[in-house]
Amino acid sequence: MSQLRQRLHEIIFEADTPAGRLFDLVLLIAILLSVLAVSLESVPTIAEAYRSELRAVEWVFTGLFTIEYIARLYAVRKPLAYARSFFGIIDLLAILPGYLMLFFATSNSLATIRIMRLIRIFRILKLTRFLGEAGVLRAALRASMPKVSVFLLTVLCTVVTVGSLMYVIEGPKNGFTSIPASMYWAIVTVTTVGYGDITPQTTPGQLLASLLMLLGYAIIAVPTGIVSAELVRRPRSISTQACQDCSHEGHEPDAKHCYRCGAEL
Amino acid sequence: MSQLRQRLHEIIFEADTPAGRLFDLVLLIAILLSVLAVSLESVPTIAEAYRSELRAVEWVFTGLFTIEYIARLYAVRKPLAYARSFFGIIDLLAILPGYLMLFFATSNSLATIRIMRLIRIFRILKLTRFLGEAGVLRAALRASMPKVSVFLLTVLCTVVTVGSLMYVIEGPKNGFTSIPASMYWAIVTVTTVGYGDITPQTTPGQLLASLLMLLGYAIIAVPTGIVSAELVRRPRSISTQACQDCSHEGHEPDAKHCYRCGAEL
Amino acid sequence: MSQLRQRLHEIIFEADTPAGRLFDLVLLIAILLSVLAVSLESVPTIAEAYRSELRAVEWVFTGLFTIEYIARLYAVRKPLAYARSFFGIIDLLAILPGYLMLFFATSNSLATIRIMRLIRIFRILKLTRFLGEAGVLRAALRASMPKVSVFLLTVLCTVVTVGSLMYVIEGPKNGFTSIPASMYWAIVTVTTVGYGDITPQTTPGQLLASLLMLLGYAIIAVPTGIVSAELVRRPRSISTQACQDCSHEGHEPDAKHCYRCGAEL
Amino acid sequence: MSQLRQRLHEIIFEADTPAGRLFDLVLLIAILLSVLAVSLESVPTIAEAYRSELRAVEWVFTGLFTIEYIARLYAVRKPLAYARSFFGIIDLLAILPGYLMLFFATSNSLATIRIMRLIRIFRILKLTRFLGEAGVLRAALRASMPKVSVFLLTVLCTVVTVGSLMYVIEGPKNGFTSIPASMYWAIVTVTTVGYGDITPQTTPGQLLASLLMLLGYAIIAVPTGIVSAELVRRPRSISTQACQDCSHEGHEPDAKHCYRCGAEL
Repeated sequence: MSQLRQRLHEIIFEADTPAGRLFDLVLLIAILLSVLAVSLESVPTIAEAYRSELRAVEWVFTGLFTIEYIARLYAVRKPLAYARSFFGIIDLLAILPGYLMLFFATSNSLATIRIMRLIRIFRILKLTRFLGEAGVLRAALRASMPKVSVFLLTVLCTVVTVGSLMYVIEGPKNGFTSIPASMYWAIVTVTTVGYGDITPQTTPGQLLASLLMLLGYAIIAVPTGIVSAELVRRPRSISTQACQDCSHEGHEPDAKHCYRCGAEL
Repeated sequence: MSQLRQRLHEIIFEADTPAGRLFDLVLLIAILLSVLAVSLESVPTIAEAYRSELRAVEWVFTGLFTIEYIARLYAVRKPLAYARSFFGIIDLLAILPGYLMLFFATSNSLATIRIMRLIRIFRILKLTRFLGEAGVLRAALRASMPKVSVFLLTVLCTVVTVGSLMYVIEGPKNGFTSIPASMYWAIVTVTTVGYGDITPQTTPGQLLASLLMLLGYAIIAVPTGIVSAELVRRPRSISTQACQDCSHEGHEPDAKHCYRCGAEL
Repeated sequence: MSQLRQRLHEIIFEADTPAGRLFDLVLLIAILLSVLAVSLESVPTIAEAYRSELRAVEWVFTGLFTIEYIARLYAVRKPLAYARSFFGIIDLLAILPGYLMLFFATSNSLATIRIMRLIRIFRILKLTRFLGEAGVLRAALRASMPKVSVFLLTVLCTVVTVGSLMYVIEGPKNGFTSIPASMYWAIVTVTTVGYGDITPQTTPGQLLASLLMLLGYAIIAVPTGIVSAELVRRPRSISTQACQDCSHEGHEPDAKHCYRCGAEL
Repeated sequence: MSQLRQRLHEIIFEADTPAGRLFDLVLLIAILLSVLAVSLESVPTIAEAYRSELRAVEWVFTGLFTIEYIARLYAVRKPLAYARSFFGIIDLLAILPGYLMLFFATSNSLATIRIMRLIRIFRILKLTRFLGEAGVLRAALRASMPKVSVFLLTVLCTVVTVGSLMYVIEGPKNGFTSIPASMYWAIVTVTTVGYGDITPQTTPGQLLASLLMLLGYAIIAVPTGIVSAELVRRPRSISTQACQDCSHEGHEPDAKHCYRCGAEL
């Protein structure tokens, strides 16, 4: 019995075995297909034409994710700890709406349907489990945080200052109806998104907007530089040894011989 | 008495003690909430519904920032030097409109209200105090300046040349009403903001615009590369000591000798 | 006879000799002109005015590319392997529509003409042959792949989550007609393209959109940092030799010994 | 006499002396003001209100740049070589329109005025003289060229392929009137400019557009990485010596002592 549990743990929680890799692939595809189905359900023409098919697909995925949830609960040593963890809650939320729909079947309120659909689409968050692998990347991002937060504070100061200046310069008649609306415009501009739903009409406004654009265009260099520098400094792999003969460093992670003197590493 | 002053100095100007850190956090939140309140006041529907509440909030923040200003004046050794510094003026501007409003209470001129509101929102600049920590980042940006200014000069030449060419090619009937307007379009395009309020309509115009877009898309690589290179070269660690002999700073983290005078660090 | 074949192979497949370089240049220009001709044919005014000239140009290029295809088949040792390779199929597709047009000359169906035109414009893919040179670049991109895929997975999760939230917040009356449409808007926003065909109208929508923009603006730093770090680590020079003993490649430019087997390079 | 010539050469062509630096600053301001004047002349309201003032300003700048041109011709050893160089032609073009206007004064043709104005605004190209200083930057850009051209070739292939696919998918009724127009849209999209003057309307079109946006968003990492890597590899200054005692490298350009062993460099 405990052998089955161990085997299950290997398949579900480890990606080293062929069975574990297959499980990960099937889960990945199931998540994407399930999200696609919920998305398509929100398109009125498709929802009407394939109502019963979509409902069937939904039941299949609710079933699959239920089996996965039970298997995970069974395979881990401390089921309660898992159930309370981030991934446990995400896994539960992925199956809950399917069963809740049975109770709310009679109530056809639009709000209920929308919220259920929203919870179902959050299945995409099950994908975050696959993000865990990029250890070096996450460490570099965490190390970049203090500098990046300085950058975000600068952007915030810029957005508030320029946004409120534009509110005074352009005014409500040119679309800058309030300071929050002007800040929204400033964010749209400084991030170079540029919807064009609100645009400066006066010459001083266009001048200030030009300065903001050039600032936003140049300022992006800062976080990029920070992350680049952090990643360059980190070793590609951590197993970089020094040669015992000539003490030369910087070998490839798969190196067996020093490339300077040929001695075995 | 001088002990109280020293304790106050520690709390206000240093972030190492728990009290100092709490003071910084409270100040940060007060600034953000105060700016939020001024912003919301500019939304007509909110301003009408919550007029008295917003006025009360404004008085609370004016009071808080006045206490902060007096405490700073009292805690520093040279109050006049602080009052004349950049941060001193910002701190004064943060409380001034609150008191000026008493005098201008009768005058309900829109211009006065707008200017007062603008000065109040500049409280966000009090946040710049927290930017002081990123020493390495600022040093890297200063070192990048000469190269980045070459980049900005190139962008300026491009914007003027392409802007005036577009004015000749497209002309006023397609929205390129003058050379300044065409330059505004060129900045909107080269920074990849792309509002779409002015767009080329003729084939030669679209061809020139395409070239400008590709240029703007590729040219951003230059400042990013400059800042990245500058940050990669700088030591990550903050343990950069000053030489005890010549007090020169900026040594490598593994340095054992000052590279200026050779004295041991 | 085999001498002619060898000479032809040199001209066509190698870029080291003057004849080889000339062949490459002529081919490059022929591809670009041919694509330009097909493009212009799709402009109604030009198609009508220069119908016969464009047809003549098409026949010239079909002829040239046919000669090139036969020459390649003749010059390589295994013609069948070439014909089945990616480049062989691209080369065949470049000439096929010219001859198929003879059969479909009577049928003037718009769909047939469009598909033929599309196949002819895929001649641009013949250019991919010239991309083969950037060995270091391609190796760096391949090494960056695992980290970049983590980045793309994060973007996917963000787009699905924010897209469906916006569908609930804004709803069909503000242009967010379905979840797929909302996801399309989220991609337009997070990539900082910002068409402005769909824009948030409500205050919570604009708030969420602002967060998405700032995220998209900052997140671009990640793949850029990854590729930068990868390229910095790789040796600049192309003089990477293969080991004569174990034929392993990818040695440092200053390497004197193979790092796999220790043999001298 | 030759002493005056040498002194003039020092002032005009060298930036090391105070006089040389002052000359550069005055020239920079004169160029910017002159371009500003020509720009303002194209705004109808300003042109009418300040016609005589703008004409006077134009004569002042023509005079100043004429003196500069003559001084340069006099100061260099080979005046003809200078006159034929890029900078010589730019300097001549900066003054020519002023004198040509005398001849065309009677002809008030709009085309002539526009071309004269365009030539006058090209005075901005006199600024390129100040770009000459960034030697390291230019060397890095030149070294990046082969890799960046591979990147541009990839962008070209993408734009042609996706542009023509969109022409077939969306068709003329949705704004994709011809293949060149669709390519223009593809460039607007892949560079993340996103005017929004042409946008996909069908679901397959929006899907393809989303892929193009994500590609354009991620692909920018490549040239940025190339330039970053090139700049990181280049020394900040070229005078980085190795220590004669311990042969340690990587000293600051202003270092006088090795930071490892303290020996004089």
